[in-house]
Amino acid sequence: MNNNQQLKKLALNIRVLSAAGVEKANSGHPGMPMGTADIAAVMWSEFLKFNPADTAWLGRDRFVLSAGHGSMLLYSLLHLFQFNLPMEELKKFRQFGSLTPGHPEFGVTSGVEVTTGPLGQGFANGVGMALSAKMYQAKYQTDLLAHNIYGIVSDGDLMEGVTAEAASLAGHWKLDNLIYVYDDNDISIGGHTDICFTEDVPARFRAYGWKVYEVDGHDFDQLRTALTAARDQKEAPALICAHTKIGFGSPNKNNTAEVHGAPLGREELELSKKNLGWTHAEEFFVDPDVRVFCQQVIDQNQKTAGAWEQSFKDWQKSNVQLATKLQTQLSKEISAELENELFAELGKIEKDATRNISGKAIQVIAKHLPGFAGGSADLEPSTKTLIKDSGDVEAGSFVHSNLRYGVREHAMGSIANGFAYSGGWFPYTATFLVFSDYMRPPMRLAALSHLQSLFIFTHDSFFVGEDGPTHQPIEHLSVLRAIPRLDVYRPADGLETAACYISSLKRQNHPAALLFTRQAIPALQREAGVGPAEIAKGGYVVAKSEVSDLVLIASGSEVSLAQESAKALEENQGIKARVVSIPCLEIFLEQDLAYQEKVIPNSATKVLIEAGSSWGWGNVLGKDVVYITKDSYGASAPDKVLAKEFGFSVENVVAQVLKKIKK
Amino acid sequence: MNNNQQLKKLALNIRVLSAAGVEKANSGHPGMPMGTADIAAVMWSEFLKFNPADTAWLGRDRFVLSAGHGSMLLYSLLHLFQFNLPMEELKKFRQFGSLTPGHPEFGVTSGVEVTTGPLGQGFANGVGMALSAKMYQAKYQTDLLAHNIYGIVSDGDLMEGVTAEAASLAGHWKLDNLIYVYDDNDISIGGHTDICFTEDVPARFRAYGWKVYEVDGHDFDQLRTALTAARDQKEAPALICAHTKIGFGSPNKNNTAEVHGAPLGREELELSKKNLGWTHAEEFFVDPDVRVFCQQVIDQNQKTAGAWEQSFKDWQKSNVQLATKLQTQLSKEISAELENELFAELGKIEKDATRNISGKAIQVIAKHLPGFAGGSADLEPSTKTLIKDSGDVEAGSFVHSNLRYGVREHAMGSIANGFAYSGGWFPYTATFLVFSDYMRPPMRLAALSHLQSLFIFTHDSFFVGEDGPTHQPIEHLSVLRAIPRLDVYRPADGLETAACYISSLKRQNHPAALLFTRQAIPALQREAGVGPAEIAKGGYVVAKSEVSDLVLIASGSEVSLAQESAKALEENQGIKARVVSIPCLEIFLEQDLAYQEKVIPNSATKVLIEAGSSWGWGNVLGKDVVYITKDSYGASAPDKVLAKEFGFSVENVVAQVLKKIKK
Repeated sequence: MNNNQQLKKLALNIRVLSAAGVEKANSGHPGMPMGTADIAAVMWSEFLKFNPADTAWLGRDRFVLSAGHGSMLLYSLLHLFQFNLPMEELKKFRQFGSLTPGHPEFGVTSGVEVTTGPLGQGFANGVGMALSAKMYQAKYQTDLLAHNIYGIVSDGDLMEGVTAEAASLAGHWKLDNLIYVYDDNDISIGGHTDICFTEDVPARFRAYGWKVYEVDGHDFDQLRTALTAARDQKEAPALICAHTKIGFGSPNKNNTAEVHGAPLGREELELSKKNLGWTHAEEFFVDPDVRVFCQQVIDQNQKTAGAWEQSFKDWQKSNVQLATKLQTQLSKEISAELENELFAELGKIEKDATRNISGKAIQVIAKHLPGFAGGSADLEPSTKTLIKDSGDVEAGSFVHSNLRYGVREHAMGSIANGFAYSGGWFPYTATFLVFSDYMRPPMRLAALSHLQSLFIFTHDSFFVGEDGPTHQPIEHLSVLRAIPRLDVYRPADGLETAACYISSLKRQNHPAALLFTRQAIPALQREAGVGPAEIAKGGYVVAKSEVSDLVLIASGSEVSLAQESAKALEENQGIKARVVSIPCLEIFLEQDLAYQEKVIPNSATKVLIEAGSSWGWGNVLGKDVVYITKDSYGASAPDKVLAKEFGFSVENVVAQVLKKIKK
Repeated sequence: MNNNQQLKKLALNIRVLSAAGVEKANSGHPGMPMGTADIAAVMWSEFLKFNPADTAWLGRDRFVLSAGHGSMLLYSLLHLFQFNLPMEELKKFRQFGSLTPGHPEFGVTSGVEVTTGPLGQGFANGVGMALSAKMYQAKYQTDLLAHNIYGIVSDGDLMEGVTAEAASLAGHWKLDNLIYVYDDNDISIGGHTDICFTEDVPARFRAYGWKVYEVDGHDFDQLRTALTAARDQKEAPALICAHTKIGFGSPNKNNTAEVHGAPLGREELELSKKNLGWTHAEEFFVDPDVRVFCQQVIDQNQKTAGAWEQSFKDWQKSNVQLATKLQTQLSKEISAELENELFAELGKIEKDATRNISGKAIQVIAKHLPGFAGGSADLEPSTKTLIKDSGDVEAGSFVHSNLRYGVREHAMGSIANGFAYSGGWFPYTATFLVFSDYMRPPMRLAALSHLQSLFIFTHDSFFVGEDGPTHQPIEHLSVLRAIPRLDVYRPADGLETAACYISSLKRQNHPAALLFTRQAIPALQREAGVGPAEIAKGGYVVAKSEVSDLVLIASGSEVSLAQESAKALEENQGIKARVVSIPCLEIFLEQDLAYQEKVIPNSATKVLIEAGSSWGWGNVLGKDVVYITKDSYGASAPDKVLAKEFGFSVENVVAQVLKKIKK
């Protein structure tokens, strides 16, 4: 058999396994795997570098199935190429607790590099992964860390805005190690793509600076030629537009929307197998010829991997310093020096905007952690997130750590996740808190997939001031807290900022949202003995721990207001009030109930001061709470005017407390 | 003076007013207005059709300042062209309660057609507005309703993904009445756009099917020629790439990022005025020549408007049926017939998925309301949102009501808002609830600007099933409820679906999110006398109103579970429980406290059953609640398996109630 005959058999096996998985689950998307089996067969057999025995091999290429609904394609490949995915798991496609969920999930299935399904995400993640490879290669001055990102993307991916943003950046950065095959099948759920998608995709991608190729997606020679050209050119990311038939092989359903998202049906599946020439009785079966061929591919890959390992050892020996630094980056260890320096540097700040304090933290962290890299969505001067002793990442120059994302919040988040998937990074992003709405999909996926992406948001309340309600976050703090497993930090001063950064760096299983003020705020005045250990609990008593019947609870910029109010209450009214700061509600709620009760006694009169929506606080504090919050849209005015208008003044806090107590 | 000399004076006046406004506020963005004053001068004087005396004139063109940070440009124009914006308001730029907020706000300032600021939104809104014009023209068969959308867009707008999505659709629909001038000044906040924005913008827009022109943005003749060509061609939307100098006129700060978002400073302002040739002592001043010129422009426009009014009256007389229909559309009245038919049709459904019930509702509503138009993000077969007796809106054929958005959720939301800004529409969108994350920015802006956009979301919980956690909403219901002024409906059966649609159609000052199930659910069994009037209160007692010590509270698909659980409790345990349904929490919370307390007595044992996050319910119910909710990510499995695994079963509800009561 020549290679194309072997590929044909492999593709057939992929098609049958994929359709069978969907059929058995009675749910799923057979059309995409059947349509792209030829692409996958040649890509995995002749291009992708991988090692099923070592899925963490640093030198491997990465495969991104951006069209995650075609998950059975990937599961079939992982089974055929002997990753840890037994046939039994393919039979349990989409069942509870299986390794084959409806859409690929990073961390669930060995060999799945990226969680995909929400369209456009995989595409943008891949851009981050390609950039990560370039930066490793540049930072450590070795091609051993270079690798390629191969992916399959769909019509739906290309329609999404996040893809447009990420594609523009990939072109800007000239990421020649990014090679996507576009499954151009002219069919989406709604029918023929002509009804909504008539743009000239190749011309669009050329405008982004990509290399574009057009091929018949069922012609191995054309695919091989294009993939070779895309891989070997060193100028730009590549998009291979492969014309395919969705549901290829299904005699009655190919090229229809019907085959996109529903099983073929038993009868059509049988007809398809016959039509494709599948002669085996079993469906969940690997053709012996395919078994042999895949073994050859694996052997070849493992030979490559073995040689790589030897070269890598040689490189480590002759580049001890770089190798040590690489080990530091990959381990993601947080040193005591970093902690100490951060607390020393930030703990002494008497008054400043926490965005500025965060800016100082970033300098310290970047000095210690080679994997700390990121940037903002065209807001560096405002978010204070530039690493000062680093340059910009630019096309052809990937040694630095500052990324310039432009006004592309969504892709920024997804690219950060791409770094996180790649390993060894603390990727950070930055924009104004109100624009967190533009990037919720990647934030949620980071949390779902346990990625340590650090999402920095400054201008974290209506104290933004004059920019007005379009730029003033109200519900954003609440709705970030609502994302499961996302840690939301809102520090009140320098010491808390240090503690929050340290925590976000250490909790490597969680993404973090770090919220900072635009306006200057004073350092808290803490009781003796209250310091980093207390802050690390997410919520703690700042002062007046002896008072338990009146508690002022606040976060970020409102803790100092709480403290001033407590002072006024005591001095003018003779009323003592405890002040509690909540730098991270998620972590506070992880503490045992006794601690939580100790900090905020259930019996106390509770006053919550937060320059945002009260939504959600009732779950923590109950119904009987004095809320000094902002639950409606803001207004355009200087921040001091707004503070007064919206009741964020000592006078109003005191008045509200008195009103409550006198009731 | 020839026209260009007059334009030059007008542009100068705009520059000085804009810079002065920012200077006085000590906050804002002078660079953009100074850079685009020439563009605005020619556009408003020679192209835009408007009537300051009748800002609601149906035949007017619309102006979209997508780069909303350049708000002083628009305020200067509105003042100069005698809209209701006195000079005093320009002096109160960005001050509390003024008509000149930091970013333009629809409904606040007369003549402001669109709320802008969050980048990309205005661009996409304009696409919806252009489509609206086309659809009015087609539906009512008269060019009197045709008009053009003119706009100014920035680098930042063009980087945003929502713009890419909207631009692709505008090209697809060949909206030749959409004319954007791109303020191509090479500067963004971060510095020169070269650091992050090197794509070939003209080529990209040509790939979308747009006409692209390139001009010197300070050359009136070139601008006039391009605007004329763009307006007169009848093939495609137009992008005029105008090369400008940001901060034009400022001798030391033009062409720098410094002038983007900060006042010039008193000294530089003086130098700029001198440099530009401003000879008046006052800054907040209209040059007498400019006053005369603007009056000429207004006179000409009002002549046009007067002629239009006469033609319109003639058209009304000779097209009585169409004119009546137009009046119906513009009035947005909800007839009793529509209400009755909807309740009759939906109230009788015994068991179905609410997405299917919604699909039936849509047919009824579309029959009655000519302004009911919309579509989904490539999910029509799943969201059931196609209007069956209507065709698709297509390039050159705008008479129908079904829009095919493709997989472009963000632009879909923003385009719907464009319809809402245009007036007379009930624009609806549709996708899966989990993808509401892709379109939060327009949802929030709809709420902020009181737009009646109807956001339909199906597959509203983990009951989605096999698609798995990437497709299962968890926190989404909560985080939609967190958006101020957005009404979130989650009906439990046919009758509630009818009531929710009626409510969302009537509350014209609010956008709505309408949530529907993928899975079939049975009709509720209500106590005698409980019907539409109770549902309209947002929350009500479904059954066992006599029981007040144990209340099962639920929404949507969980109300029937609550009802079955109550039955099991009574039959097997002799425990009676009230069942409360909350089809719209926002409206329930608008009721007086006595009613709320009557429905959910504070003293009762409260059990909340909702297939989503509990976040926020504590604000309503307090801390002592039995939550049968889903606060962590879902899993891939058939929905019945998940129901059992996640505790959404009669057995678990009964067990949790017993556990609580026995405590």
